[in-house]
Order: sequence, then C-alpha cells, then structure tokens
Amino acid sequence: MKCSLISIGDELLIGQTINTNASWLGSELSSRGVRIIKTLTISDDRNDIIQAIDDSLSVSELVIITGGLGPTKDDITKHVLCDYFETELEIHEPTLHRIEEFFSKRNRPMLEVNRLQAALPKSCTILPNDQGTAAGMLFIRNGKWVVSMPGVPYEMKSIFSNELLPLVEKEFELKSIYHKTFLTAGIGESFLADMISEWEALVRKKGFGLAYLPSPGVVKLRLTSFEGLERAEEIDQLFEILENKIPEFHFGYGNDTLSSSLGALLCRNGNTIGTVESCTGGAVSAELTSISGASDYFMGSYITYSNAKKESLVGVNPIDIEKHGAVSQEVVSQMAGNGRSNLNVDWCVAVSGIAGPLGGSEEKPVGTVWIAVAGPERIFSKKFNFGDNRERNIKMSVLGALNLVRREILGFNEEKK
Amino acid sequence: MKCSLISIGDELLIGQTINTNASWLGSELSSRGVRIIKTLTISDDRNDIIQAIDDSLSVSELVIITGGLGPTKDDITKHVLCDYFETELEIHEPTLHRIEEFFSKRNRPMLEVNRLQAALPKSCTILPNDQGTAAGMLFIRNGKWVVSMPGVPYEMKSIFSNELLPLVEKEFELKSIYHKTFLTAGIGESFLADMISEWEALVRKKGFGLAYLPSPGVVKLRLTSFEGLERAEEIDQLFEILENKIPEFHFGYGNDTLSSSLGALLCRNGNTIGTVESCTGGAVSAELTSISGASDYFMGSYITYSNAKKESLVGVNPIDIEKHGAVSQEVVSQMAGNGRSNLNVDWCVAVSGIAGPLGGSEEKPVGTVWIAVAGPERIFSKKFNFGDNRERNIKMSVLGALNLVRREILGFNEEKK
Repeated sequence: MKCSLISIGDELLIGQTINTNASWLGSELSSRGVRIIKTLTISDDRNDIIQAIDDSLSVSELVIITGGLGPTKDDITKHVLCDYFETELEIHEPTLHRIEEFFSKRNRPMLEVNRLQAALPKSCTILPNDQGTAAGMLFIRNGKWVVSMPGVPYEMKSIFSNELLPLVEKEFELKSIYHKTFLTAGIGESFLADMISEWEALVRKKGFGLAYLPSPGVVKLRLTSFEGLERAEEIDQLFEILENKIPEFHFGYGNDTLSSSLGALLCRNGNTIGTVESCTGGAVSAELTSISGASDYFMGSYITYSNAKKESLVGVNPIDIEKHGAVSQEVVSQMAGNGRSNLNVDWCVAVSGIAGPLGGSEEKPVGTVWIAVAGPERIFSKKFNFGDNRERNIKMSVLGALNLVRREILGFNEEKK
Repeated sequence: MKCSLISIGDELLIGQTINTNASWLGSELSSRGVRIIKTLTISDDRNDIIQAIDDSLSVSELVIITGGLGPTKDDITKHVLCDYFETELEIHEPTLHRIEEFFSKRNRPMLEVNRLQAALPKSCTILPNDQGTAAGMLFIRNGKWVVSMPGVPYEMKSIFSNELLPLVEKEFELKSIYHKTFLTAGIGESFLADMISEWEALVRKKGFGLAYLPSPGVVKLRLTSFEGLERAEEIDQLFEILENKIPEFHFGYGNDTLSSSLGALLCRNGNTIGTVESCTGGAVSAELTSISGASDYFMGSYITYSNAKKESLVGVNPIDIEKHGAVSQEVVSQMAGNGRSNLNVDWCVAVSGIAGPLGGSEEKPVGTVWIAVAGPERIFSKKFNFGDNRERNIKMSVLGALNLVRREILGFNEEKK
C-alpha cells in the first residue's frame, strides 16, 4: 500500500516551522508496512492544494494532508476539500458538542470562530479530535482515501492514532516492511564503513537494503526487508554479528538514544549519576532526564557556568582555574570528582568547553571541550574538538559526555590519562 | 523567481530523520525574495529522482536537491544526475586535493571511498565543500538551475552560503518579499485572534497577508508584503500598534526566543539569573545558555531531581516536602528563594512538576507544574497544568518558566499569591 503525505502551510515553506508531522507519520506508517512514496509541502493556495491531491491520488491509495485547519482566516483547506469532493459545509453536532466541552472543561469562554470549526463537509467521515477544536476528515473516492488533519502535532497524532489508524488497519491489508536500525556513537561514517566492509558484503549478498544514516555524533545503520517479518530473524542475526565486531561503538537499536541506553545500563547496575556542567549549561542533565523513569538513577546536577560557581558550588581550586584556565583537564577533573562526592552518586560526568562563537584563543580554539567521568575507581578525562558552531558544540558535548560515561562503565576507555 | 526543493533519502520518508534542510533553505531563500513553491521528499530511487527533477523544472527556475551524496553504496544521486544531464564522472583534481587536505588536517587516513567522492560529473560547475568530502554540483539547462548538495546539514549550509548564494544573487534579479513576525507567549491562538480582531481588520484592509503560527506556548503572527521593502515601514507601524495593545504577551520579533528576549532584558538591567530545577532537569538552564553571551547574566543552577537533593543542595525543609509534596507552592517557593541566595543572583526561577507518564495522582495529575520566581522584592509562584505528554510538559515548563520571569521583571504578574 502506497501513501503520499501533503503538508500545507507557508510557515513550512519559508522555514519558520520544521515539518515534524511528515517524519512522525512516516515512521508510524512505514513501521506498519505502508510505503511512503513522497512527502510534499505546499502553500495555503487553492490551486496548489488541488494539484497536490490530484498528483498524489495518481500514485497512492492513501493521501494524508496535515495543516490549514485552524480557526483563523488564513486557513482554507476545509473549503478547498469541500469543492474538490463536491460537497458543502454544515454544522456537525457531535463536533460542536465536543468543542463546547473542550472550552467548558478549561473554564474558557468559547468564541464564534471556534463554533465555526464545527462546520464540516457533509460527505466525509469525521475523525474526532480530543486534543483540540479542529476535527479530522476522511473522504473516500474510488477506493482511495484522502484524509485531512490539523497541523498542530499533538492534535494530529491523537487523531491519527485513535481514529485513522484503526480504520486503515481494518480496511487495507498491509504488507509488512521490516526495518531495524543499529546505532553507533563516536565513529565517523567512512571509518565505520571501512571497519565493517566484510559484514556489508554479507548483507548485500543476502539481498537486504543497507542505509547509513549519519548525524552529528551518531551513525545509524538501517537494514530493510521488503519481505516483511519472514526475514526479520536473519536481520537480527546479521546485527548480532555486527555487535560482536564493534561492541565499543554500538549503543542500541531503533529509537534508543545514548541517554536511554545509558539509563538502562545504570539501572541494570543499580548505579546513580549526576553531572557538573559548564558549556553545556544543563543540556547533559536535560538529556538524561528526557527519559521517563530517569529518577531511578539520576539524582541531580550543578550547573557551574561562571568560574565563581565552579569554586562555590563544587569547590574547584581557584588557583587551578587561574593557572590552567576553566577549560582544562585539571578543572574538569575536579568538577567531576568533587561533583561525585557532593552529589553522593556512583558516576559523575563533568563538561567544560568553549561553545563559541566568542571565547576562543589560538591555544584553545572555539570547540575545545574537556569531559571527565568520575567513577568508583578513577577519574578519566578526554579532550575533544568539535569545531566552530555553538549549537553543534553543545550537542556534540552532550553526546560526547553520555558516550564517555557509557564507555567508562563498560571498560572501553583507554588507560588513565 | 520560483524554487522547488527536493530532499532525497528513505530516512526522511520513514521518519528516522527530520527534514531540517528544507526549512533552513526555505528561510534563507524566501528572505531573499525567492519564492519556495514546494518541497518534495523522495526515496533514493532512480525513477523517483528523475520524475521529481522533471516536475520541479516545469514549475520553477531553481531546483535544489539535498542528500544522497555520501561515500557509501546506498547513495545514487550523483550517478542519476550524470545520466539526466548526459555526462559522465571524472576525477575533479581540486576536489581530490581538498579531500586529501581534509583528512590530513584531521590526522585521519583517507579511504578509497573518500577518494571516489572526487569523481564528479564533467559538465557541471563544482561547488566546493569546506566542511566535508561531498562537493556540491550546479547544472544549467535552458537557463534553469539544478543544484545538488550533500544532506549533512552543516555541509549543505556551508556550500549554500559560501558558493551557491553568491552565484544565485549574481545571476537572478530577485524580487524581494518582506516578512516580519511578531512573537507572543502565554496566550492561545483563538484568544489572541479575538483580542486583536480590530487590528486584524486593519491589516486586511491594507492588503497584507497575515498568518497565525501556533506552537506549544508561543503563537507567532507573520505579516507579509509581496511588494518587498517598499511597504516594510507600514508593517513595522502595524506591529507597533499591536505592541501597545498587548504588551504583556509580546516578547519579540523574528528569530527571537523567550530565552534571547529574557537575556536581553537581564543585560539591559544589569541583572543576573540562576535556576533550581526538578522536572525540567536542566532544560531551563540549557535553554538560557543556548544563547551566545549568556555568561553575562547566567551564573549557574542546581538540578534537584530527587527529594534528597532538594534538601541537601538548596535546603528545602524536608517537613514541607513530607507535608505538601515536592510539587507544591511551598517547596517550589523555597527552591526559588534559597536558590537565589545560594547562587547569589538577582533572579532565580524554580520548577517542580510531574512530567509523567508516571507519578500522577487524582489531586496532582501528570502535567501539574509549579513555577516560582524569586526576585529582589518577592517570590511569585504559579501553578500550571500542561496535560499528559512528558516531552510537551517539559517543553511547556521551560517556556512557562522563562515567560514567568519575563513577566515578573516587567511587572505583568498578578498580585502576590
């Protein structure tokens, strides 16, 4: 079964909003065997919308449109769909009732524009929205489905999961596609490819699709079987071979993240963790606590952004800051070691670096980052250089810190430096 | 001048990677008067790529393709482009030299797959990549441009800004479009629309395009003039009127964020800030320090994720935790007040809430969040309920905290509770 996604909104085209709906829908649908053949983003323009629906219907059985259903005057999708499917708007009583409830529950007065959101095309199936006021709509013509949902991500997700998906699963016989993704950290794409070239030859011999998905700090390897679950076991076995080949770089599968994998590792060992952060400003801590259940192992952190706080909060020796600078092995090691004692945790990771764009020098250019991990037996520290982009430096420092802890717990770091 | 963007990659279609390239290019191009008419994402498939280029060339003068140029075997774009433009690959010496330099600078050995990245189509203009090994390519046919760039965002951005943009600006006479975006926080889309309906009527009378761009916690209003800078002043004046109408909700323009606006406000007043965070786990602090120059006003934070750390790091009274719970006005007020003293800052914001999915109760459901701001004169606290999604709760808590500090500094919060 083939599907096209259409996202409507000038804010997407001019880059004011990033299109996360398309990727979310892509993930949900493809994991259920629906093949996404294209995603298209267009303007709130009548002709463009009609053209996009025409084109998409010619190559797919399911067309999902998101966006353009808001209560304000710039949203035209509902009206265009009425014309396209030769029907007209009328107040849909159950939806009106829902909208009224939505407002009364929140103790907020209901406005006329909200009431008008209950005016919906006569000839479609309404997909109720329990998170907001814009209902979803399903039109069927010649066995092909056209669905329109609001663009607000959590409203769209709720309608998709609760209303649309059960209908799709019931109506279409889905041929399943099996994807599995192997996650690596701390090694570049080319090096990884070189290191695993024999394994890759084996994969291709067996006829699976292999994709490298590089992103800063993490390279993912995806194997695909278009014959569905039948060959899932073979893929599992191939990845087991790879795990044994490169254990030090492998940290998980699928939707795992460095923080979820590290969390699982800490749980397994019954250990706790905390952080002491300078240039990452709490981003390591935030990443660790993005995982539900983090309170089982994550205790707390000191964010010591200024030198004064490095001294007053975790007792870094001011003479060392003076002598070696705040971005140095001496200072970051004290941050980690003292943080571990003060927070009373098993593992403490500390980060001090120059995120930029200001603050670099010839000796320590922007992107220089020291990371230290204090554990039961030693403090291990390592210097990184992530280049000259602030946002990327912070992100790479977060991933670098999480990976360094993972490696230290598993014994993959070199001898003490 | 009209432009279509094509992104190539199964990882985008199946939602493994979010397409940030399209939004970044959309923003860069539209701000320079290039109209993005559509963005299309397709698979690494020869026929799909050819069809997409054909379709895009029929409606636009500039077609920009990103992705599919990696060193690994699944990337086919370069070969498809060779066939499409009836040319062949040959080693491009300057690119080979660049790639060699790239590896020697990083003290990394160069692999054969990297050398092959210097094999480029004969008949195109090479756009050098100073951030990586995959060069950009520009093909011109009948005055229309087709550009191919790698999908790694920072490599693409570098090629676009340093190589492609100067060529586009030189060759095409760009008609400028003027966008300006007014940012609000702490008010929903419908309420905002109702509150400013008179102003909106004025805007429409003057013939400008108005768009509401809602996202969790923030609603943006965008005015567009297709007559370019000529009418920019009128747009500025319209927004000035709006500023005076809703000062309490307005926090900035364009790419401002709550953290950058708050940072500017703190700088202007010569004030410092710190945080004490529980459910946000450092995300408020990370958001504050995402801004370059944050060290001028941001000093540090305590992340007190466990109750024990609330006591040991910032001296919250354990009796109050026992009596009222960690998510309570009493506890969050002590976190803010004690944090302000311990960190020795002018403003301290504290957050304690139930991010979920676990930990809720009938009295305090998931999404219940207390935020307190301690300042020179008082501690102001407020209870929020953000609903049942963990990720959204953390995000809304961050925005809520930043907005509550902003409002407190500017005197927009109600009487002390």
